[in-house]
Amino acid sequence: MTRIAIIGAGPSGMAQLRAFQSAKAKGLQVPEIVCFEKQNDWGGLWNYTWRTGVDQHGEPVHGSMYRYLWSNGPKEALEFADYSFDEHFQQPIASYPPRAVLWDYIQGRVEKAEVRDQVRFNTAVKQVDYDAATQQFTLHASDYKTDHSYAEQFDYVVVASGHFSTPRVPEFQGFSRFNGRILHAHDFRDAVEFKDKIVLIVGSSYSAEDIGSQCYKYGAKQIYSCYRSQPMGFDWPENWCEKQQLLRVDEQRAYFADGTSAEVDAIILCTGYLHHFPFMPENLTLKTDNCLYPLGLYKGVVWEDNPRLFYLGMQDQWYTFNMFDAQAWYVRDIILGKKSVPSLTKMQQDTAYWHAQAQALTHAEQLVEFQGEYIKGLIEQTDYPSIDIDAVNQIFIQWMDDKREDIMNFRNKVHRSVMTGTLARKHHTPWLDALDDSLEGYLKQPKPTQSQQVKRSQLKSQRPKMSEYR
Amino acid sequence: MTRIAIIGAGPSGMAQLRAFQSAKAKGLQVPEIVCFEKQNDWGGLWNYTWRTGVDQHGEPVHGSMYRYLWSNGPKEALEFADYSFDEHFQQPIASYPPRAVLWDYIQGRVEKAEVRDQVRFNTAVKQVDYDAATQQFTLHASDYKTDHSYAEQFDYVVVASGHFSTPRVPEFQGFSRFNGRILHAHDFRDAVEFKDKIVLIVGSSYSAEDIGSQCYKYGAKQIYSCYRSQPMGFDWPENWCEKQQLLRVDEQRAYFADGTSAEVDAIILCTGYLHHFPFMPENLTLKTDNCLYPLGLYKGVVWEDNPRLFYLGMQDQWYTFNMFDAQAWYVRDIILGKKSVPSLTKMQQDTAYWHAQAQALTHAEQLVEFQGEYIKGLIEQTDYPSIDIDAVNQIFIQWMDDKREDIMNFRNKVHRSVMTGTLARKHHTPWLDALDDSLEGYLKQPKPTQSQQVKRSQLKSQRPKMSEYR
Repeated sequence: MTRIAIIGAGPSGMAQLRAFQSAKAKGLQVPEIVCFEKQNDWGGLWNYTWRTGVDQHGEPVHGSMYRYLWSNGPKEALEFADYSFDEHFQQPIASYPPRAVLWDYIQGRVEKAEVRDQVRFNTAVKQVDYDAATQQFTLHASDYKTDHSYAEQFDYVVVASGHFSTPRVPEFQGFSRFNGRILHAHDFRDAVEFKDKIVLIVGSSYSAEDIGSQCYKYGAKQIYSCYRSQPMGFDWPENWCEKQQLLRVDEQRAYFADGTSAEVDAIILCTGYLHHFPFMPENLTLKTDNCLYPLGLYKGVVWEDNPRLFYLGMQDQWYTFNMFDAQAWYVRDIILGKKSVPSLTKMQQDTAYWHAQAQALTHAEQLVEFQGEYIKGLIEQTDYPSIDIDAVNQIFIQWMDDKREDIMNFRNKVHRSVMTGTLARKHHTPWLDALDDSLEGYLKQPKPTQSQQVKRSQLKSQRPKMSEYR
Repeated sequence: MTRIAIIGAGPSGMAQLRAFQSAKAKGLQVPEIVCFEKQNDWGGLWNYTWRTGVDQHGEPVHGSMYRYLWSNGPKEALEFADYSFDEHFQQPIASYPPRAVLWDYIQGRVEKAEVRDQVRFNTAVKQVDYDAATQQFTLHASDYKTDHSYAEQFDYVVVASGHFSTPRVPEFQGFSRFNGRILHAHDFRDAVEFKDKIVLIVGSSYSAEDIGSQCYKYGAKQIYSCYRSQPMGFDWPENWCEKQQLLRVDEQRAYFADGTSAEVDAIILCTGYLHHFPFMPENLTLKTDNCLYPLGLYKGVVWEDNPRLFYLGMQDQWYTFNMFDAQAWYVRDIILGKKSVPSLTKMQQDTAYWHAQAQALTHAEQLVEFQGEYIKGLIEQTDYPSIDIDAVNQIFIQWMDDKREDIMNFRNKVHRSVMTGTLARKHHTPWLDALDDSLEGYLKQPKPTQSQQVKRSQLKSQRPKMSEYR
């Protein structure tokens, strides 16, 4: 029997499980699926752990999730087309849910699909080999529960291990002398640790923006952030100062390219993540920076040199959960033989075209629209329920406006689901004051008021440049 | 030509390099040696890095070394028999050198031996396979400099990757809620981070003792340490309190088995390390706890099931550098065919005997003497220069007395080299006041005074129990 290995049971791997289950529910013959998950539960990054560095098995901790994280984009932009927030929560909820709420949502769908028994938890894939003669992959796995290693053969492999787990950790002059903590965003867990501290955030992308905002919310004394090319440029609170590039540090101070310096207590490197697949042989390893359309992957998912191998979710992401769905359904149909892929040359030409298009874009809204087009193209080819991508693009653009207007309050805005038409409730507590991030605390919310819907329509629509969001 | 792979260029791997070079210098034919080192320099743990968690290549950081570390045992107990401190420094130095000084010392010998070109730096061994038919090992390595993987064949493999790099990280109830930093000793870097803080140290072995002492030295407000079986029982300073076992924590407090609780700002898990060899196939992987005589290794080094494979330094360690030497010389002579190993049954019997002897010991001095006997047995069989092990044992016992007498001042004591007869100089600054841990600062020291030598002879010689030192 044909066998498929899925590596990782995070949002991408869960999408792949659901994609196959959906086909099976419609009466199709589906291969045997084994999903390998090194953590003890599914959800990938959404499965919070207090651990940092190396886990109890001596392996790098997967999680980059921190406490008190609330979605940094509206839930209406990531909603599944086949499983709405309304279906899961049976009531309207607000637009920027905390981690526990989103984790609950993505679990709800795969629990309903009853695919949990396809996942081998606490089992890490250590090595993948491919035998061209037999067209079989051998996966070497470690079962942490039994402290035992084994190998199994598969016909297809779907790499769904994510690309926000392995930190990119640059060194700056003086790091060996600095007296405070130096950590990467990957190891950031609890903003309360930095209460009353002077925190230096290195970087200007999402982690920098969000971890800095967390530190502000939880009482950091002063925040400095610094950028290489462009400042984030938001209207920061008084005790948040954006600096030019970090040049060096000494025991207590950080020195910046503009000639200024500042005393700092801790340094948080929000310097991004590596696409890292230590379990893959070199000739099957995706090597890419974080971009909208990586080379080597036809339609963003098919390993061109061996179309029995797939990577999910390897793009720079505006769209997330529903993009993984579009990809997973497409991969499923190739594996099921419902779709075929063209010749290697044609695949490469197609990828090169899309890659070049993506690289030429300069504005944030263009990037969103590009990714929307990409998803449209995938959804058209499968039975995944259609999504009004143009409407979702508008939600993203509104979100950018909201951030531009008030970076510490954009999470208080509400959006309307393009799937169900439901307008989000206003959360009972403004984000800056909302310290209860539990599922229970979040669902305790009053009905939305009329005035809030009016306010939303008055937002300005000035469009930011891409660099302001990278 | 016969080829030998050494995995790791820390103290053990460096000893193996020196062992072969020594034979070559005496005119013996020596196989080709390739030493793989994933760090960018040699010295293993003694090669300090500010990095924690995952390194710039996405792999677990090897280093557990922290800033301001001074040897926690007298240098006279770890001195090489073939390269004395006198030869290296050309002057007497004090007995408890800081990290940079010991790093300099262990490098001095291998630089003199001119073996650096046998080391492939920035190169991690990812997988070792053994083919019984050809009796060859295949090592799969990643060269970080070129971002390239390759495989090579070897006749012998010496695993010298250490066992103080992969933290054992237990979870305690409430860790997901605790608001401060939770870290393992492996990720501890700079005690200044904990100045004015209330620090909870979990554990009662060397890391607990030394990291707690560091925090005290650098101004922690209060230290709690807690133990499972036995307290360390030293005469701690006023602001250091030993507690019974940790039961749980909440946002701010730690709760102990004696019913007490305390507010704490940070939790440092000094809970030991795992013997962890993710690059080895399961049937060649040493699985042991940290003990004096692991099962599976004949004479503590020969992999019984395949005597072409060796492990160095896998013992619980009182003796360190010179034990690694004794082992490396012995391994060298087996590989060179100067020594043979008995049948598998005989090896297993021998190991079982020694293992049982070790497990029966209860007092610290017995453990030291046992390890001394083991080393004597190895040295007798090779041309490694003889060591007066009984005299070194006495140094260890004196060291225990010194700690018992004054845990914060034992590093101010001096010992006499059994290799050269040189009495250590007294360091110019008492350890508690010595904030300059640089090589240069350390070597600036006055001649020893008469009075200090008198004081040393007046030390009491009360013998502590093993549990007090575990």
